Amino acid sequence: MKAVLLDGFGGTGVLRIGEVERPSPAQGQVRIKVMTTSVNRPDIVQRQGNYRQPPGESEILGVEVAGTIDALGSGVSGCKVGDRVMCLVAGGGYAEYVLAYANHLIPIPQSMSLEEAACVCETYITAFLNIFLIGNFANGESALLHGGGGGVNTAAVQLCKTLTPASQVFVTASPGKVERVKQLGADFVIDYTSQDFAQEVKRFTDGKGVDLILDHLGAKYLASNMAALAVEGRLLLIGVMGGSKAELNLALMMVKRQRIIGSVLRSRSVEQKGQITAAFIKTVLPKLADRTIVPLIHAVLPLEQVAQAHAMMESSKHFGKIVLRVSTSK
Amino acid sequence: MKAVLLDGFGGTGVLRIGEVERPSPAQGQVRIKVMTTSVNRPDIVQRQGNYRQPPGESEILGVEVAGTIDALGSGVSGCKVGDRVMCLVAGGGYAEYVLAYANHLIPIPQSMSLEEAACVCETYITAFLNIFLIGNFANGESALLHGGGGGVNTAAVQLCKTLTPASQVFVTASPGKVERVKQLGADFVIDYTSQDFAQEVKRFTDGKGVDLILDHLGAKYLASNMAALAVEGRLLLIGVMGGSKAELNLALMMVKRQRIIGSVLRSRSVEQKGQITAAFIKTVLPKLADRTIVPLIHAVLPLEQVAQAHAMMESSKHFGKIVLRVSTSK
Repeated sequence: MKAVLLDGFGGTGVLRIGEVERPSPAQGQVRIKVMTTSVNRPDIVQRQGNYRQPPGESEILGVEVAGTIDALGSGVSGCKVGDRVMCLVAGGGYAEYVLAYANHLIPIPQSMSLEEAACVCETYITAFLNIFLIGNFANGESALLHGGGGGVNTAAVQLCKTLTPASQVFVTASPGKVERVKQLGADFVIDYTSQDFAQEVKRFTDGKGVDLILDHLGAKYLASNMAALAVEGRLLLIGVMGGSKAELNLALMMVKRQRIIGSVLRSRSVEQKGQITAAFIKTVLPKLADRTIVPLIHAVLPLEQVAQAHAMMESSKHFGKIVLRVSTSK
Repeated sequence: MKAVLLDGFGGTGVLRIGEVERPSPAQGQVRIKVMTTSVNRPDIVQRQGNYRQPPGESEILGVEVAGTIDALGSGVSGCKVGDRVMCLVAGGGYAEYVLAYANHLIPIPQSMSLEEAACVCETYITAFLNIFLIGNFANGESALLHGGGGGVNTAAVQLCKTLTPASQVFVTASPGKVERVKQLGADFVIDYTSQDFAQEVKRFTDGKGVDLILDHLGAKYLASNMAALAVEGRLLLIGVMGGSKAELNLALMMVKRQRIIGSVLRSRSVEQKGQITAAFIKTVLPKLADRTIVPLIHAVLPLEQVAQAHAMMESSKHFGKIVLRVSTSK
């Protein structure tokens, strides 16, 4: 089968299309004929050599796909060959075929295109898991979301305004993205290049701060995040793109009863991902099916242009997801 | 009424017995004739001038009492003058009379002495709140508790081994207290003066680490605590006696999905304390009433020896609580 392979680790130049063996589903798994996949930050990290897949998992990039079930492993029930599905995969999404666990499959609603379906799993599940399942975000609370037009952030804004319409949503964005983030439903958009987001958040919340922050920058934002966080606020840490080591003021954190919660999706167990998927299907999928929430697509490129797709994400000029079309035949 | 007053802030020399006006209960409050109170770390901090009571609260030391209800404010039901009660107070415990909120009252079981009753609220509620209500400690999990013979730590060991008997409990203690902590039920006691507790915890958990840590040392222990914490482990931070600023490795915390949770009891709202008290009465009080859990008393001194009592706590040579007897007439 066709797949994206790596000539070592490094820049986009290491990405090439090659041929590899088609994988066979193990117990509890299905094989998916991949129609679309999408580019996520973990793919960049992996291409650069800063992530190694766990033993037994595919070393091919790609953490989510949409397509049709092509073969069933033993012990799989509740789905059949030909079903249109989208799902998280441990790796291997940038290929014509990929293995997935049956309990991670999400049926693709009739109303959703395969390009949109490639944009659902990594970003919406990440946002839903952290803000709602872990962060217990409640209607009427306030959230600060970093990341302007990124996939997780745009999904997070949509989820907050849909699942908790009385919430107040603050977003940090670069100047060129402020208007589009507002159109997405954010209540306050802070231009982080010219404004101090902690000060702005305090100003708009009468000094109270926000109840939840979803952060992927780590060290760079830690002090400002803690300053922007309300009493009993939760900081969900899902990335360390701005460095990993920072000084923390434990006394303030204690007195304000704040929480810092480290969270990643990829390394969770198959069982945990199954539970998260089930909660997602129950709560979020109906909102995608009736198009209350529509995934934002920045661009769709053929798999052969994977290097351009990576360069596009690394430029950070995108708004919404970058989709790779793997196959057009069903 | 008789009360402990402060001649400025500082060492034990600032403590003196004096006379002040007897307080009157406001709506929702009762006045308690105090029989016993006890010495807690927050009393030391307040005496040293490092804590200021919120507006409207008593400036007299003392955060928990046992005694009898002496007068009811308006709107109080469910209790009556003469009832034997123990409770948290916002301050004012080192006095003949103190005000308390009716929803913070805990009936003193017949089987419990007034000296024991003075030892229940601050330490057992702190341990219960953090380990169980916030930390969601589950039977079969493992906990690391710091603080040897201190009030919160001894209560925490008893609660873990009583409410979650299949749990594994690690405690750090000074050499002179190791045996007594073992007798209390701890599974592993680590002499922190000669052993690296993170290494010891890893050794006894096959490298896994513990699921929950209750820490009052803050900065001094942060790096070791994070190293001793398992995947999805929770660090409950209830004090910063070892400093407040420390470097945190956010990348490790994220990958291991760990949580740091700041928590204080005293500054919580009257309503929150009421909810916590109700949960405590339901889950822990029966274990105190049937003497499965017996509060540990190090010494009982008359209120007039409050300076000696404070010196005793500051020596850190005590094991269990230091009780002050305020009145012997009922």
